[in-house]
Amino acid sequence: MDKHSYTIAEVAKMLKVSPSTVSRAINNAPGVSDSVREKILNFVDEIGYRPNTIAQSLSRGKSNMVALILGDIRNPFYADLAFGIQKNLDTHGYIVTTFNSEYDYRKEIEFIQFAKQYHYCGIILVTVNSKEADKYINKLELPILLVNRITEHYNGSFVVTDNFQAGYIAARHLINLGHKKISFMSGHHKSSTASYQRFLGYRQALKNYCLSYNEQYCLFDLNWKMETGYEAAKKIFSLSPSPDFPSAFLLSNDLLALGFMDYCEEHGIRIPDDVSLVSFDNIVYSGLHRIQLTTVSQHVEKISSEASKVMIDLLEEPSKEPRKIIIEPTLIERNTTRAYKNAES
Amino acid sequence: MDKHSYTIAEVAKMLKVSPSTVSRAINNAPGVSDSVREKILNFVDEIGYRPNTIAQSLSRGKSNMVALILGDIRNPFYADLAFGIQKNLDTHGYIVTTFNSEYDYRKEIEFIQFAKQYHYCGIILVTVNSKEADKYINKLELPILLVNRITEHYNGSFVVTDNFQAGYIAARHLINLGHKKISFMSGHHKSSTASYQRFLGYRQALKNYCLSYNEQYCLFDLNWKMETGYEAAKKIFSLSPSPDFPSAFLLSNDLLALGFMDYCEEHGIRIPDDVSLVSFDNIVYSGLHRIQLTTVSQHVEKISSEASKVMIDLLEEPSKEPRKIIIEPTLIERNTTRAYKNAES
Repeated sequence: MDKHSYTIAEVAKMLKVSPSTVSRAINNAPGVSDSVREKILNFVDEIGYRPNTIAQSLSRGKSNMVALILGDIRNPFYADLAFGIQKNLDTHGYIVTTFNSEYDYRKEIEFIQFAKQYHYCGIILVTVNSKEADKYINKLELPILLVNRITEHYNGSFVVTDNFQAGYIAARHLINLGHKKISFMSGHHKSSTASYQRFLGYRQALKNYCLSYNEQYCLFDLNWKMETGYEAAKKIFSLSPSPDFPSAFLLSNDLLALGFMDYCEEHGIRIPDDVSLVSFDNIVYSGLHRIQLTTVSQHVEKISSEASKVMIDLLEEPSKEPRKIIIEPTLIERNTTRAYKNAES
Repeated sequence: MDKHSYTIAEVAKMLKVSPSTVSRAINNAPGVSDSVREKILNFVDEIGYRPNTIAQSLSRGKSNMVALILGDIRNPFYADLAFGIQKNLDTHGYIVTTFNSEYDYRKEIEFIQFAKQYHYCGIILVTVNSKEADKYINKLELPILLVNRITEHYNGSFVVTDNFQAGYIAARHLINLGHKKISFMSGHHKSSTASYQRFLGYRQALKNYCLSYNEQYCLFDLNWKMETGYEAAKKIFSLSPSPDFPSAFLLSNDLLALGFMDYCEEHGIRIPDDVSLVSFDNIVYSGLHRIQLTTVSQHVEKISSEASKVMIDLLEEPSKEPRKIIIEPTLIERNTTRAYKNAES
C-alpha cells in the first residue's frame, strides 16, 4: 500500500469523477448516487486515503477539536467531568482534548493560547480565576464556556453549581443535627469561586441560625488534594483543647474530606462519634460502604451533559445569547454526620 | 491591541531586521545578540504576536503534540499515568492530549488515525490489543510507544510492568498465608495482555506450589470498573456452599477489588476474616485507613517517567533501537489478607 498522502483531486482523477463528487461521497453529503458513493469509499479505503484534515481546518479557519482545560484530572470529579464531556461531544463529531492547568493560571493561559494557535474550535474552561484570565477570556475570538467557576467580569456562557446553596445546605444539615461550632476547611478562595461561594453559603447559614463564626478553627487556601486534607486535620487536632473546638467540619471537596477522615481514622478520632464531616462533590469513592461520606452532590453527569449541549450551541449557533446555567446541588446524607451529643455544653 | 495575526516577515519588517533574526530570537536560537533578542521579544509581546504554529507544523510535517490514548481516565491508575506523562513531556515542550478509547478498539484506531491526520508528532498507546491495532500500529509512520500492554506482533518500543511476576507474587503471598483455594477475577484476557499475564503468573504459582486450579470459582472478561467488582462478588457469593469455595481472591485491578469489598461490607462478609483479597495497581484510595487493600504496585510514577523518557527519545533520536522496558512490581501488604484459619480443612 502506497504511503503517499493523496489529495481529493488525485483521487478524483484516478476514479475519473469530479473532485466535488469525491468530496461529497467522503463527507456523506447528498448529490452522489449510492453506487458511485460505494465505489469511491471502497477505493479510498483501498489506497488508504485520508483527507488532509489539518489543511482543511486551516482553510476553514477551524477544526473539530475542543479543548477542555481543568485543574487536575486526578481528582475523580474532573475525571468524571472530562469523560462525560468527551463522550457527549464525540457523538456530535467533536474531539475533546484535556489539559491539566494544575491550578496555575499561567499554564491555563498558555493552554488557551495553544488552543487558539492550533485552531481549536472551542474551549471549555474550569478556570483558576485569575485577573489575567478574566481579562483574556472576554477578548478571546473563540467560543468559550466556563464550567464550575467563573471570573469577575466574564460575560459569556457558563454552567456552574449553585455553590452558595451547596454551602448553605451543608451547614444547615449540621445545624439541624444540633451542631453549634462548625468549622470550614476551604480551597483557594482567590482561584476558586466554587470554594468561596460555598464558604459564603456556610457563613449565611451560621448567621441565619444565630451561630457564631470562629475563624480560628477554619483553614483557608488549601489545595484540593487528599494529602492536604490529612495535613489540615493534623493541624486542627494539634490545637490546644478548648470549649470552642468545633464538633463539625465542612470541607471544600471530597478529596480533602477523605484525607481528613484518614488522619482521624489513624489517630483514633471517631467519625461521626467525635466529629461530624460534610463535604462537596460526591465522587464515587465517597459512597463506598467503608467510607460513607456525607457530601453535597454537584451532579457531575448533569454538568457534563449541560456543558456539552451549551458548547455545541456555541459552535453551531454562535448567534444565540450566552447561556447561563446554574445547577441545584443535593445533600447526600451518609454516615459521617450525627446529632450533636451534648447540646447544653 | 491589534488582533491581526502577524507573520515573521511582518514582524521583521516592522523592526527592520531580517526574518531569520526574528525567528532565531523567538526560538531562543544562537546568532542574535542579547540586546536585539530582548528588543524583539519585547516587541512581539507587545503586539501579541503568536507564531502560526499550525502552519509551521504543516510545513515541517509535524507538531509538538503527543496523543495519549488509554481506556478510561476515570480509573485513577490512568489519571495518574496521564497526569505524570503530561507533566514530564510539558517540561520538554510537548503538549499531551488524552483520549479515552473506552476499551473499544474501533475508537482506539479512530484516535490513532486522528493523531496522524492532525500531524501529532507521536502516540503513547495503552492498547486494547485487537488484531486490527496489531496490524495497524506496526505500519504506522509515526513514533509510537506502547504502555502497560502490548500486541502480538508489535516490534516497537514499550514500557510495561512485569505482569506475570505481579500475578505470581500476589498468588504466592496468599499461598504463604496458608490459602489453598484461590480464585482469580479477571479482566478481558483478549484485550488486556496485562490481565492475561497476571492470570498466567497466578496459574504458575498454583502449579509450583502443587495447588489445584478451580475454574468454577474464577470469573473472566470483567471490565475494569468498581460496579463490576461488586457484581462479581454477588455472583460468587450466591453460589451454593461447597468445601471447594475459595478462601482468597485475586482481582485484576484495584477498582474491581474496591467493588468486591463493597459488596462484602454490605453483606456482612468480613475481609480478611472470611476471605482474603489481593489486587493490582495500588491506586491512592487503596491506601486509606478505612480501606487498606493489599495490592501489587505497578509504580505508576516510574511507568510515567520511563514512558516520557522513551517518547522523547523516539521523537528526538528516531534512529535509536526500540526500547523495551519492563518494570518490577512490588507487593504492598495491607489488611485485606490474613493467614488461613483452618489449614487442615
